[in-house]
Parts: sequence; C-alpha cells; structure tokens
Amino acid sequence: MTGKLIVFEGVEGSGKTTQLQRCLDWLKCEGGKERLVVVTREPGGTSLGSGLRQLLLEDRHPIQDRAELLLYAADRAQHVEELLKPQLAMGAIILCDRYTDSTVAYQGYGRGLSYDLIAQLNQIATDGLEAQITLWLDVDAEIGLQRARARGVADRIEQADIAFHKRVQQGFTQLAISHPQRIVRIDANKSEDEVHLAVQAILRQRLSSWF
Amino acid sequence: MTGKLIVFEGVEGSGKTTQLQRCLDWLKCEGGKERLVVVTREPGGTSLGSGLRQLLLEDRHPIQDRAELLLYAADRAQHVEELLKPQLAMGAIILCDRYTDSTVAYQGYGRGLSYDLIAQLNQIATDGLEAQITLWLDVDAEIGLQRARARGVADRIEQADIAFHKRVQQGFTQLAISHPQRIVRIDANKSEDEVHLAVQAILRQRLSSWF
Repeated sequence: MTGKLIVFEGVEGSGKTTQLQRCLDWLKCEGGKERLVVVTREPGGTSLGSGLRQLLLEDRHPIQDRAELLLYAADRAQHVEELLKPQLAMGAIILCDRYTDSTVAYQGYGRGLSYDLIAQLNQIATDGLEAQITLWLDVDAEIGLQRARARGVADRIEQADIAFHKRVQQGFTQLAISHPQRIVRIDANKSEDEVHLAVQAILRQRLSSWF
Repeated sequence: MTGKLIVFEGVEGSGKTTQLQRCLDWLKCEGGKERLVVVTREPGGTSLGSGLRQLLLEDRHPIQDRAELLLYAADRAQHVEELLKPQLAMGAIILCDRYTDSTVAYQGYGRGLSYDLIAQLNQIATDGLEAQITLWLDVDAEIGLQRARARGVADRIEQADIAFHKRVQQGFTQLAISHPQRIVRIDANKSEDEVHLAVQAILRQRLSSWF
C-alpha cells in the first residue's frame, strides 16, 4: 500500500471535524497537492456505515455495551474493505475522523469492556490495518463537552455524563503513552488557528519523510 | 436460569416461521400452558435488532462478509442481554427463529468465513448462552428457495444463488452431525401438518423431562 492513513482522535468537542477540514484544504493547495486526498469518518464512512451511524448515535434504541462494540466493529470492517484498503492501494492520503483508538477509549475506558475483547475486535475489524499517524486533539473533557453541546442537539454519546467523558479522556492519555511513535498529542485547548498550525507542522515533517 | 431456549433452524423456505407459530399455539393450549411462552427471532428480536434486520436484509447497501458477521453478532448480543437472559430467568419457554447455527451455516459454509472467527464471535455475542434444543427443519435447498421466492419480493439473502444455499444446507447437515444431543433433524419436505406433529412429538418428550 502506497497511501497513508492519518487519523484524528479526541473527545467530543475536541475540534476533530473542523481541523480535519482545514487540514484537507491545506493539503490540497500545499502539502499534498500532487496526491489524492480523501476525507472519511467512523462510524459512517460507507453507505452501510451511514445506517449504522444513525442506529448508534441518532436513534433512541437501548444498546447493550457488547452490541455497541460489535456495531462499531461492523462499521469499521466495512470501512476498511470498501474504502480504506482500496484508496490506500491507489496511493491516497486519507484523513479519517476516529479509528481504533476511539473504541479503546470509549468502549474500554468509557464503558468498561475488557481491553482483550476490544483488541480482538479491532483486529477482526481492521484486518491489521493501522494508521501511519494519529493526531490526538487533547482538550479538557469539560470544555470539549460544552463545545459539543453548544452545537445543538446532543447525540447518544454526547448525552453520557461527564464522568464517562473523563474516563474516555483518560483512555486517550494512556493510549498516547503506550503508542508514542504513532500517536502525536496536540493541545486542543488552544485556538483553532493555533491547533491548525500545529497539525501543519507535524504533517509537513511526516509528508517529507513519506514521499 | 429456569426457562428453556428452543431454536428453530433451517434454510430459506424450510417453514420455520409457520412451524414456530403452530408450536406456540400448541404450547399455549397444551404442552406448556402453565408457562410463559415467548416468540422471538434473529435478526430482529429487539428494537435495535429491527433496525439491524432492515440493514441486513431489506436495504441495498453493499455489505462485506466480515461486516455482515459482526452485524449478526451485534444483533445477537443485544438479543441475549435484553430479551433471552431476562426471559429465561423468569422461567419462560422461548421459541427463537434462528440462533448461532445460522451464523455457522450462512457465514461459515455459505460465505466461507473462518469457523474459528465465527466461533469466537458466537461466544462474544451469546456470552455462552446455548439453546436447550434446536429443531432443524431439513428441506431440500431448491424446494425451500422456491417456497421462499413464491412469498414475494426476495430479501438480500434469498437473492443469493442456489450454490450458496446448498452450502448453507450442507452446513446445517454438518452441525447436526457434530451436535447430536442438541440438534434434532425434522424432515421438512413433508406436509405442514406432518412437520408440526413431529415438532410436537419431540417437544412433548423434552418438556416432560424438563419440568
């Protein structure tokens, strides 16, 4: 595979979606302009995934923790096979909003499911496909949640209590410690522009080492 | 758990749904009349499951084999926790249209996914909950498919080719050989009444040994 998978991670309101869009604009006119750049997300990066995203975030069905974990895994398996692998094979730079670390942080640290079980399902879902770099937008959980709620109607995950979101935040912190090569922490309490410049600086360096 | 889980299995058009309904009517007035009798199905036995059933069978999204397997597992995990375990704990007799054997037959024999992977996911989804008895309605795959298609619009699974359905049939045959205590074969090429009498005879014996 000649493409590169760049993942944006963080709690609700960490600015992932905004930063991902700004990163796309920058890559198109500068950093990666000779490359195909693709933006996608989990859950919901495929046609099946849109239906799953609706079930997971918008609808009001009760969802058991194990069922939730399996649904995220199903979304990911579809995403990996239908979109990520083929696009990487064509040499694309992929900007992906959430990937395997979110499952560890939300379903492991947040819900309390076993880390072995999550590792098992991440392996099944990804078929071993890992991100080349993960940009962790580290924002204080309370600030992030306030930002997310200010956007309007809160989805099923955003509605969880602050203790849940703090455990998720703790999960990302631990993941960054365990994977120092892959995960780069960015202080997302700073302004949007400052965060964007930090993303640029990191990716400029990586792009020059990759291509 | 004091209840009993009775599963109906078989290829499309094997008469599961009809036989399950006739079995319910019979249990209510005779065999299990002092018991709570519950009818359910996979996929789709819960509120979340209805959405998943729609995604799996009715919608026209492309679905990768691994994603399909994970979706059935998610449906099952929700079903086990939300409905099967609580009802069994209350002493119910549950009649369930499809369970773990369908996953082995369809996703293993039919799609060709690894049996180890399927066993792993069945374990995660069921948390070890097994059927007390599985009534396998064994109908010739071609006859079954003709019956199913005569019902009207074919769903995503019914639309698969006959070779797929023959592999599924082969899967049920192998499962019955491997689990002779749990799986009872019933010749479903016979008339509806004859099949119902066979179901009655088997369950009458089991009920007297259980209660």
